[in-house]
Amino acid sequence: MNYRMIKYTLGWVMLFEACFFTVPIICAAVYGEREIFAFLISAAICAAVALVLFIGKPKSRELYAREGYVIVAMCWILLSLFGALPFMLSGVTASYIDALFETVSGFTTTGATIFTEIESLPKSINMWRCFTHWVGGMGVLVFIMAFLPLSGGRNMHLMKAESPGPSVSKLVPKVRTTALILYLIYFVLTALQFVLLLCGGMSVYDAICTAFGTAGTGGFGIKNDSIASYSPYLQIVVTVFMLLFSLNFNAYFFLIKGKIKEVFSSEIRAFLCIVAASIGIITVSIRGMYGSIGEALRHAAFNVASIISTTGFSTTDFAAWPTVACIILVLLMFIGACAGSTGGGIKVSRFIILIKGARKELKSMIHPRRVQKVTVDSREVESEVVRSVNAYIAVYAIVFAVSTLLIAFNCKDVVTSFTAVAATINNIGPGLSDVGPMENFYFFSVPSKLVLIFDMIAGRLELIPMLILFSPSTWRNK
Amino acid sequence: MNYRMIKYTLGWVMLFEACFFTVPIICAAVYGEREIFAFLISAAICAAVALVLFIGKPKSRELYAREGYVIVAMCWILLSLFGALPFMLSGVTASYIDALFETVSGFTTTGATIFTEIESLPKSINMWRCFTHWVGGMGVLVFIMAFLPLSGGRNMHLMKAESPGPSVSKLVPKVRTTALILYLIYFVLTALQFVLLLCGGMSVYDAICTAFGTAGTGGFGIKNDSIASYSPYLQIVVTVFMLLFSLNFNAYFFLIKGKIKEVFSSEIRAFLCIVAASIGIITVSIRGMYGSIGEALRHAAFNVASIISTTGFSTTDFAAWPTVACIILVLLMFIGACAGSTGGGIKVSRFIILIKGARKELKSMIHPRRVQKVTVDSREVESEVVRSVNAYIAVYAIVFAVSTLLIAFNCKDVVTSFTAVAATINNIGPGLSDVGPMENFYFFSVPSKLVLIFDMIAGRLELIPMLILFSPSTWRNK
Repeated sequence: MNYRMIKYTLGWVMLFEACFFTVPIICAAVYGEREIFAFLISAAICAAVALVLFIGKPKSRELYAREGYVIVAMCWILLSLFGALPFMLSGVTASYIDALFETVSGFTTTGATIFTEIESLPKSINMWRCFTHWVGGMGVLVFIMAFLPLSGGRNMHLMKAESPGPSVSKLVPKVRTTALILYLIYFVLTALQFVLLLCGGMSVYDAICTAFGTAGTGGFGIKNDSIASYSPYLQIVVTVFMLLFSLNFNAYFFLIKGKIKEVFSSEIRAFLCIVAASIGIITVSIRGMYGSIGEALRHAAFNVASIISTTGFSTTDFAAWPTVACIILVLLMFIGACAGSTGGGIKVSRFIILIKGARKELKSMIHPRRVQKVTVDSREVESEVVRSVNAYIAVYAIVFAVSTLLIAFNCKDVVTSFTAVAATINNIGPGLSDVGPMENFYFFSVPSKLVLIFDMIAGRLELIPMLILFSPSTWRNK
Repeated sequence: MNYRMIKYTLGWVMLFEACFFTVPIICAAVYGEREIFAFLISAAICAAVALVLFIGKPKSRELYAREGYVIVAMCWILLSLFGALPFMLSGVTASYIDALFETVSGFTTTGATIFTEIESLPKSINMWRCFTHWVGGMGVLVFIMAFLPLSGGRNMHLMKAESPGPSVSKLVPKVRTTALILYLIYFVLTALQFVLLLCGGMSVYDAICTAFGTAGTGGFGIKNDSIASYSPYLQIVVTVFMLLFSLNFNAYFFLIKGKIKEVFSSEIRAFLCIVAASIGIITVSIRGMYGSIGEALRHAAFNVASIISTTGFSTTDFAAWPTVACIILVLLMFIGACAGSTGGGIKVSRFIILIKGARKELKSMIHPRRVQKVTVDSREVESEVVRSVNAYIAVYAIVFAVSTLLIAFNCKDVVTSFTAVAATINNIGPGLSDVGPMENFYFFSVPSKLVLIFDMIAGRLELIPMLILFSPSTWRNK
């Protein structure tokens, strides 16, 4: 294990975090809020920690798969531990666990909040909450890699461990350039949404925060009723961008390159079909609850996009919708967005591999002598990827079951405990019943909050890095 | 596809079903019930159908895997279609779908009922309900195989397709002798429970019905309150036998052979640990609801045994227990019994393979160059079995999600729709909320009942035979 290189990389993470505070600092300066000191002190602490971590330069810059997973897991934990400082220093939270919960929820783009009264929070605090979504959405290490030549050519391990989806493909031969292209697309899309929100009469502050929250598919609102009080035009803009940010970013790269055929991969086609079918069924099932079919369609589209993209914004209390609509939303929570997007969940591509893998097994039971392959987009899927997807599902199910059981002591009913875990491990935000879109996560005990914090990070990093970090076998040097 | 051999085998199935009616016919004769005619007519119809199916002897007795799955699936469908006749002919059900639901629930050992008033049913009808559990528990084709040399040496395909669990091992070299030994153990255990129930003061009729229902891990009660009104002694006998019937029957074979070490396979050890832990936690969580800790322990043990064995008897309304107890019961619904038992669910051994397979993948991520194997009971698990378990889980999840969605139109809440599917696909019986232990399945619409009927059969046969029966690829002769 290359400990020095791990330490060195984490140093950069802390230095970048110090820089991230610039955003809320500027905001606090503009609005003359005294919370500026909380952010300045936090930035100073992060910078100091970074300097300590920089002591002792690594002799070798080699990083193997194992170190990649460990760095990614530790990076996210460290980032959250120090990102929670402003909440404590400004006094908006009384307990550190609450501050940590809010920060983890931010970076992992979950959007589950412990605040009951959001509108009374200082503007700079809300800006920081939304900015953590933007940073976490595309990945912190991917961000750092875009600007720094961290290690030789071994960055791929880091990118693989941090990026969502069953396999990662480089857009261009160099990892660093790939990271840069991804962030460029991300930035342009965010800016575009910001402009469109301004056009709809949103204030600059609201537009920045909402764009950050949508881009990261996060879901922290800056209003108590989330997006409900904004105009239909603004709700439609948010709907469209939630969907855009849940597509595989490779699609945008192919779009720019003019490779239209490759834009519509089987994953994106499946994603769009699921979205369309869900909106259709829900619209029909809720049409009686709203004034017009158009209004029902708008609410259905918004909330389907919000859940499948794992953003978690809401325009209405979907927990009060008919059972069939609730079941669809719960299923969408698990499906999640496309691989290589900023969204969470199990990811559409994993389901495609899962279904095709099962079909292959079924076929080989019927015709035992024929050789069967799993192919996606007319390319063969390596058996290694199929196996890792299956392992992912198994681990996911276990973490899910254990978490549901652990927080059950704290829940009024089965639905709360089940959907609280579903909403955190899939990085969505709201669930049903006591964690529904009109409720919050404040009522959970400290042990339950710790379980949900683990689930949020494990969910964002797709379980494996967290398991490898906590597995004794990782730390054995044989 | 050897159509003639399929037809011929199904002929035997119908002939055996005609014989099965002997049990309720004797019961009706003893109690002088006029329902005797319903059973006599049903038996005659089955025998007539058998004769028609026997026309045209098969030229070849060869059965390949494909035919094995098709026969098993069709056998169970046919058995249910004709097993429903007495309910219609006696007039206890008004609709054929209700009769079919009850019969499928019986043969698949689910135990979900559409009757609100069970105690007023004729004794012979209740006897038939419970006897279907006994027949379905160990498997109809296994039963036929024990008595008939159906086909050359190819019976293994049938046994594999009908027996629960990820892989089937023959106890002795001959399939027929294995089937005979299994039924012998099954019969002896049932008789033992019958005697112990008589010792506790149960009537002969009640004891036979209860023993049939326990042995098949079925769960049809003959009282409206299931087992609640029986004495604590009787409840404890049922608890113990529910657990005994959910163990892998190989264990009893090894026990007779004196191979004590092989009795406690890793599956049985895991099963017993899960049972003990669940009873412990539930007892603590419900102790305030009952008079003494002993009473709480008895209810906890009974209902844990009832759910994990997928029997579905109840002594109390567990739907009213605290959330943590409900979550444990829901998790147990999915775990289910051991492979090679009469119980349903996903099966403990599948979870063992799933977890060990995932661990192997995780280890090969940490140490990519080391060769890793999956071993259970110090034997290597073939990669084919691991892959088929993963395929099973994927198919299971899809069937589960689609079913939950389809019946959601008919359900008051998410819990009803979720646990109704869980209770049928895992062959348990009661779920929570509107399908809780004090409720029944009568209120579902015909389409919903058809979905649940499919789930019960698919669950009992562990999905693959039903999928192969309905897969177009099966019927293509290339």
